[in-house]
Amino acid sequence: MTDQSDAGQLSRPPGPGLLDRFRAVRALTASLIEPLGEADAAAQSMPDASPAKWHLAHTTWFFETFLLRDQVPGYRLFDPDWPFLFNSYYEAEGARLARAQRGLITRPTLAQVIDYRRQVDAALIAALPELAERHGDLLELGIQHEQQHQELLLTDILNLFAANPLGPAYCADPVRDAAPGQALPSAMRWIEGGQGLVQAGYGETGFAFDNEMPAHQAFLAPHALASRPVTNGEWIAFMRDGGYAAAGLWLSDGWDWVRREAVSAPLYWRGEGEDWQQFTLAGWRRVDPEAPVCHVSFYEADAFATWAGARLPTEQEWEAAARGHDAAQGIQLDGAGGVMPRAEAENDGFASLFGNVWEWTGSAYRPYPGFRTAPGAVGEYNGKFMSGQFVLKGGSCATPRGHARASYRNFFQPHQRWQFTGLRLARSL
Amino acid sequence: MTDQSDAGQLSRPPGPGLLDRFRAVRALTASLIEPLGEADAAAQSMPDASPAKWHLAHTTWFFETFLLRDQVPGYRLFDPDWPFLFNSYYEAEGARLARAQRGLITRPTLAQVIDYRRQVDAALIAALPELAERHGDLLELGIQHEQQHQELLLTDILNLFAANPLGPAYCADPVRDAAPGQALPSAMRWIEGGQGLVQAGYGETGFAFDNEMPAHQAFLAPHALASRPVTNGEWIAFMRDGGYAAAGLWLSDGWDWVRREAVSAPLYWRGEGEDWQQFTLAGWRRVDPEAPVCHVSFYEADAFATWAGARLPTEQEWEAAARGHDAAQGIQLDGAGGVMPRAEAENDGFASLFGNVWEWTGSAYRPYPGFRTAPGAVGEYNGKFMSGQFVLKGGSCATPRGHARASYRNFFQPHQRWQFTGLRLARSL
Amino acid sequence: MTDQSDAGQLSRPPGPGLLDRFRAVRALTASLIEPLGEADAAAQSMPDASPAKWHLAHTTWFFETFLLRDQVPGYRLFDPDWPFLFNSYYEAEGARLARAQRGLITRPTLAQVIDYRRQVDAALIAALPELAERHGDLLELGIQHEQQHQELLLTDILNLFAANPLGPAYCADPVRDAAPGQALPSAMRWIEGGQGLVQAGYGETGFAFDNEMPAHQAFLAPHALASRPVTNGEWIAFMRDGGYAAAGLWLSDGWDWVRREAVSAPLYWRGEGEDWQQFTLAGWRRVDPEAPVCHVSFYEADAFATWAGARLPTEQEWEAAARGHDAAQGIQLDGAGGVMPRAEAENDGFASLFGNVWEWTGSAYRPYPGFRTAPGAVGEYNGKFMSGQFVLKGGSCATPRGHARASYRNFFQPHQRWQFTGLRLARSL
Amino acid sequence: MTDQSDAGQLSRPPGPGLLDRFRAVRALTASLIEPLGEADAAAQSMPDASPAKWHLAHTTWFFETFLLRDQVPGYRLFDPDWPFLFNSYYEAEGARLARAQRGLITRPTLAQVIDYRRQVDAALIAALPELAERHGDLLELGIQHEQQHQELLLTDILNLFAANPLGPAYCADPVRDAAPGQALPSAMRWIEGGQGLVQAGYGETGFAFDNEMPAHQAFLAPHALASRPVTNGEWIAFMRDGGYAAAGLWLSDGWDWVRREAVSAPLYWRGEGEDWQQFTLAGWRRVDPEAPVCHVSFYEADAFATWAGARLPTEQEWEAAARGHDAAQGIQLDGAGGVMPRAEAENDGFASLFGNVWEWTGSAYRPYPGFRTAPGAVGEYNGKFMSGQFVLKGGSCATPRGHARASYRNFFQPHQRWQFTGLRLARSL
Repeated sequence: MTDQSDAGQLSRPPGPGLLDRFRAVRALTASLIEPLGEADAAAQSMPDASPAKWHLAHTTWFFETFLLRDQVPGYRLFDPDWPFLFNSYYEAEGARLARAQRGLITRPTLAQVIDYRRQVDAALIAALPELAERHGDLLELGIQHEQQHQELLLTDILNLFAANPLGPAYCADPVRDAAPGQALPSAMRWIEGGQGLVQAGYGETGFAFDNEMPAHQAFLAPHALASRPVTNGEWIAFMRDGGYAAAGLWLSDGWDWVRREAVSAPLYWRGEGEDWQQFTLAGWRRVDPEAPVCHVSFYEADAFATWAGARLPTEQEWEAAARGHDAAQGIQLDGAGGVMPRAEAENDGFASLFGNVWEWTGSAYRPYPGFRTAPGAVGEYNGKFMSGQFVLKGGSCATPRGHARASYRNFFQPHQRWQFTGLRLARSL
Repeated sequence: MTDQSDAGQLSRPPGPGLLDRFRAVRALTASLIEPLGEADAAAQSMPDASPAKWHLAHTTWFFETFLLRDQVPGYRLFDPDWPFLFNSYYEAEGARLARAQRGLITRPTLAQVIDYRRQVDAALIAALPELAERHGDLLELGIQHEQQHQELLLTDILNLFAANPLGPAYCADPVRDAAPGQALPSAMRWIEGGQGLVQAGYGETGFAFDNEMPAHQAFLAPHALASRPVTNGEWIAFMRDGGYAAAGLWLSDGWDWVRREAVSAPLYWRGEGEDWQQFTLAGWRRVDPEAPVCHVSFYEADAFATWAGARLPTEQEWEAAARGHDAAQGIQLDGAGGVMPRAEAENDGFASLFGNVWEWTGSAYRPYPGFRTAPGAVGEYNGKFMSGQFVLKGGSCATPRGHARASYRNFFQPHQRWQFTGLRLARSL
Repeated sequence: MTDQSDAGQLSRPPGPGLLDRFRAVRALTASLIEPLGEADAAAQSMPDASPAKWHLAHTTWFFETFLLRDQVPGYRLFDPDWPFLFNSYYEAEGARLARAQRGLITRPTLAQVIDYRRQVDAALIAALPELAERHGDLLELGIQHEQQHQELLLTDILNLFAANPLGPAYCADPVRDAAPGQALPSAMRWIEGGQGLVQAGYGETGFAFDNEMPAHQAFLAPHALASRPVTNGEWIAFMRDGGYAAAGLWLSDGWDWVRREAVSAPLYWRGEGEDWQQFTLAGWRRVDPEAPVCHVSFYEADAFATWAGARLPTEQEWEAAARGHDAAQGIQLDGAGGVMPRAEAENDGFASLFGNVWEWTGSAYRPYPGFRTAPGAVGEYNGKFMSGQFVLKGGSCATPRGHARASYRNFFQPHQRWQFTGLRLARSL
Repeated sequence: MTDQSDAGQLSRPPGPGLLDRFRAVRALTASLIEPLGEADAAAQSMPDASPAKWHLAHTTWFFETFLLRDQVPGYRLFDPDWPFLFNSYYEAEGARLARAQRGLITRPTLAQVIDYRRQVDAALIAALPELAERHGDLLELGIQHEQQHQELLLTDILNLFAANPLGPAYCADPVRDAAPGQALPSAMRWIEGGQGLVQAGYGETGFAFDNEMPAHQAFLAPHALASRPVTNGEWIAFMRDGGYAAAGLWLSDGWDWVRREAVSAPLYWRGEGEDWQQFTLAGWRRVDPEAPVCHVSFYEADAFATWAGARLPTEQEWEAAARGHDAAQGIQLDGAGGVMPRAEAENDGFASLFGNVWEWTGSAYRPYPGFRTAPGAVGEYNGKFMSGQFVLKGGSCATPRGHARASYRNFFQPHQRWQFTGLRLARSL
């Protein structure tokens, strides 16, 4: 969050309908855990992931800490021992459980955590009129924060279930609202983006994270972006052409990673030749050659682009192309249940800019010119992660509808691929 | 299991009351998980430990595999995918889940595993008359195997709960049957053991594991054993004397371990000076200076003995001293619920030979002269672990009553200490 | 190397005086190893470093492979087994010795490697007229490549000698040509850089590496750069203020690194309070508070800048400021012998832009718009390292005079600090 | 060293001819480094190994520290900084260089270390009459200690040269004194050892290490030992039979090791089918099927024995068989230059008990009954290593002639195999 002109203001004013959105987001989170048992909700599949129960509690801790504890006089913590358990990474908030130990917290139970959510919700709603007026920015941040964790909750459950040889399904039907048969045409078009100065970053009056600001000018060289993301079918062609064995296609770090981890396909794939399955929130499914490839790392995305004679877009190129498009369209999360990327119907312009898969860019995640962090613990929200990661744009099938925007900067390490991550090609003209 | 004279016979005939003991052991296991929630039963605190649910299923897999599948014509597996999940280490039984992944098996659920137990029990009981006659040795092995896992289940839960900052208690009262106030006198007596040839190993007609056989002769040099295990109070004296910082007391590997792991007290201890607490199955408790020290590694036990001007007993010395004593006496597991070591009343001879704490010996775990493994997968039961480990004797507060005997050889790696492990001093005369 | 318009041309034409520069560079390398014994030249202090003997041979392998083997018909390799030993990282050139094993190559001997140099030099000089005409770009690349290894040779020897408890000196007098007493004033001035479009990258007709091209436009926001690098005295103030213990100053990865490696001072420093020594090529020396701080990582540089209320410059800001300055001025390598950073005399503009210490920028090392790699093995020269690293600008006391230029992009991983790395502050206006 | 009755006496009196033996041993060490260059002598191939120069210096440090410094009034250390470099593992002697850093000590030079040897030798010889009388046990210990390092020096050089792709030879002719064509017959005989009490350990009046004492009684069960070690030809049969892929043959730790390290042949072997070469001190040589297999780990030896329907001997069985044989016979080190195991001529009894290859026993390396360490630093000589290792008996082709005896206990970790280690089969009767 930047603090451009007013030390007391974390960011821009909150968007409209704060109370309704608060209720809706909290309810969606609750619905996401319905398919889970107590053990499912407590397990941690790897240090990068967190138990679903932890997501439930941590998002609640965020509201309790920065709203109730800090802003509501006389508020008493639900349990003074729990902040140690449910603080994620805020150094300014003191000691905390080691990240890799989150799966050992079998107590408090899921029922206790749900009770924690209820009580914090009640306290927040009681204090809401005043909080909304004086700390609407923090409330908005808490809502947006919980939306981020909704997506993480789903990707972490996917990772957990994928590790189970029984291959349990989180939901029966991965795409509930999509019309069948709307296959993306295999033809991909190049759409030119012009040379010149463009605006980058968020400059409007709604909510945005601190890392999207300040808005600033950037200069683009002539380039073109692909009309749609790379598909599974194209990825299989890369694999058949020996892409995972051709050192010359890879960044040096990527090549080390491929050999060390014996990577030979996207995460969650099994099979060979043309016959591939992928593990999804609906269990094992045949790979759809028309759907966007998903669960690839930056290293893989970069190698694919090199193989294709192209490159990844910069975040500025991507943002310039996406500005003006409706970010609430596309395959996104808008109800409880399972999700997976799928082919979208063709249109004249760009397909799948928002939703479907996060798109790796070639831009390292670094601060914008003039970037400043907010004072206090919330200043740790984004800024301290600005090394060693790459920017992703757009959003995925698991991104809550309404959360995406053109200036949004998601970021992960170049080897990570348990998120819904794909790519769109670009080239210089 | 040795197979001395009959290729069809795994070991000695089973003991009496096979059906009753089968029922009782299975029932005790079921009772042990009553205090646990679904998540408690599914979590794995470290690669050395296993989830309680896994113990439930693995012991059942053992009966299903070696009795029902192998010996009951027409038996159909409960679920053909489950052996992959619940085989522990039997290479001859094929591929299996990596040990460190056991905590990710949130499905099957605890209820499904309990159902698995019920169905396997029913099938076994239906086939029991014939099984008992022709494969009583395997049935006996399955019962003894499950008793071993009862102790592991408790020590693994202790390890899991100890990792939880909230310090949850598994049971309310750690020692239910013990009379209070029966403190072990601080005076420790030396009891001499004579020089000469003694019998080592199991030579009777009941059940014993293959690693206790064959019975053989061993020659003992003049020596004495302590009348009781080393106490917490004595251990605190060692700590106050700088025992953990004195390189000269330690084996080289032990000293490396102490520094690498920053070890400065027994496992599960916290505090300083004279004021120490230990985490038990009943939660955090004050350290009782009169009770046997517990949760120390072989390295620590060896260093303590050196500090005390003594040494650890050999397994042959220990066995010769214990022969003839009643192995069913002492603080042992005989009901559901929590357990911890405690001071025992004084007597004229040895105290706490059986129960209370496993006692590290100075004997590396190696095969007895003439040792042979059984053919097939059960031959992997003990023999393949005969390197890099040390023998422990006696049994602990968590060893099921009736399971211990003088010839019993427990074994762990020298750095391991999450079991109920202590020590008794010895010296050469 | 970009290949913009002519597939046969690696880069721009070579600079003038190719033969003289070839001889001079090869002679300087030979002089750098004079203070070394056979063992000094063969040892490898860490995987990131290489033995001096390996640098001698690898730079020669580069000429032998890409000039003699590829371009001189009938040339026979000095030894067909040596390319396996002395290829650094060129995948297209086949299998090679693992990097961490370079210190085990005690044979060939130093004398044999020197003989290798002589024979390759002779063959090159014999073929030079034709090579210079047709492959001048490769010859120039070989010369520039060897200059890079001259600096690495010195920093690797420094790292090796620093690991020796005896603290041997590589040379007696660290700064041979510098006038004594020219202390940098402690006052640091801010020099403004304007907003607007600037040129970035190399656009002239001389030699530049492929990663500096193509020249392109970049947009700068208003900013200012410090007139000189941060000094040791300022760094000691940071340390005294608890900089290494203040989580809030550090990037998340940096804070992990500081704790994991227990970092509390620049590399090669020992001491406490105000009394610090640093290990140099001339052995242990008192830290000069007026000299630029050196051997700090990107993480440290970034944390210092945050502590100082500033930031690191972007590479474009740095380049715009440096354009037009004489890159051959300053404390640089121009003879055999030892070197270390030192305070420079004040002047009206920027001090120490070139030489003294490499300056960390805040720019991740990524390709310029339109960047293309050359075909073949030399295409691996720079491009494949464009992830996970940060750009450094300027040059150091160990950079051969004549090698630096404003568009030069050096790059290292954010934790690395065995190079002569320091920083210059910047701030947004 | 035990100290049975006299606190001032480290062990038994020294053997005869102390001065002559001192000179001869020191001269042999000097001759061993003649084939080495300065870099060869300084490199360390792995943490388990040490540079030859370090062996030269460490053995000298041993004499300087425990004889000259401790026992000769007024002696001044050659260099007070060197003990930090050349103390191996004696905690009581203070801080020391980390073991894995020994290869970085390029200074002092080899010439300086040789000078160190000369000066310490001169000082010792000057003080010898008095030292021999009062501290003959320490002098003897120093001589025996240096003999141990002669063997280590050769095995460490072999390991270093084996890591060099050029495969340099340490010496031209691996077996200088052996008559050619004396092939060991492929027939192996079983030689019975009787049941009953035998003496174990050293009970005579000459020199022995503390770990061989005190002499004591041990009881042997009926058994037989093979007349000769296992040959390369027999090992190839094991390999062809899938020995390295048959989990059932391996100890659990051994199987983990085989898979983790991808072990498929003895160390230093390359080839396939029947066509194998091994790297020796004389470079790459064809594997001789009649020669004893060498460079196998305990895990491999144990798996081979299981495959052969046999087992490894206990150290007591081996010692009882070897007692009375001439330990100075066989293929052993008695001059400078290269060595390797080779087939020995047949005889009526045991072949190759001493020399040729160290023979793994099935005995864990633990203290003998009544074992006591000497006071002070020399008490760390053997005792602190008595966990996690296995006993080897006999000696190898690189053991200095005169150093071996039946009671000698060599010891290494079960995965280590860079020593000249083989095996002899045993079986219970």
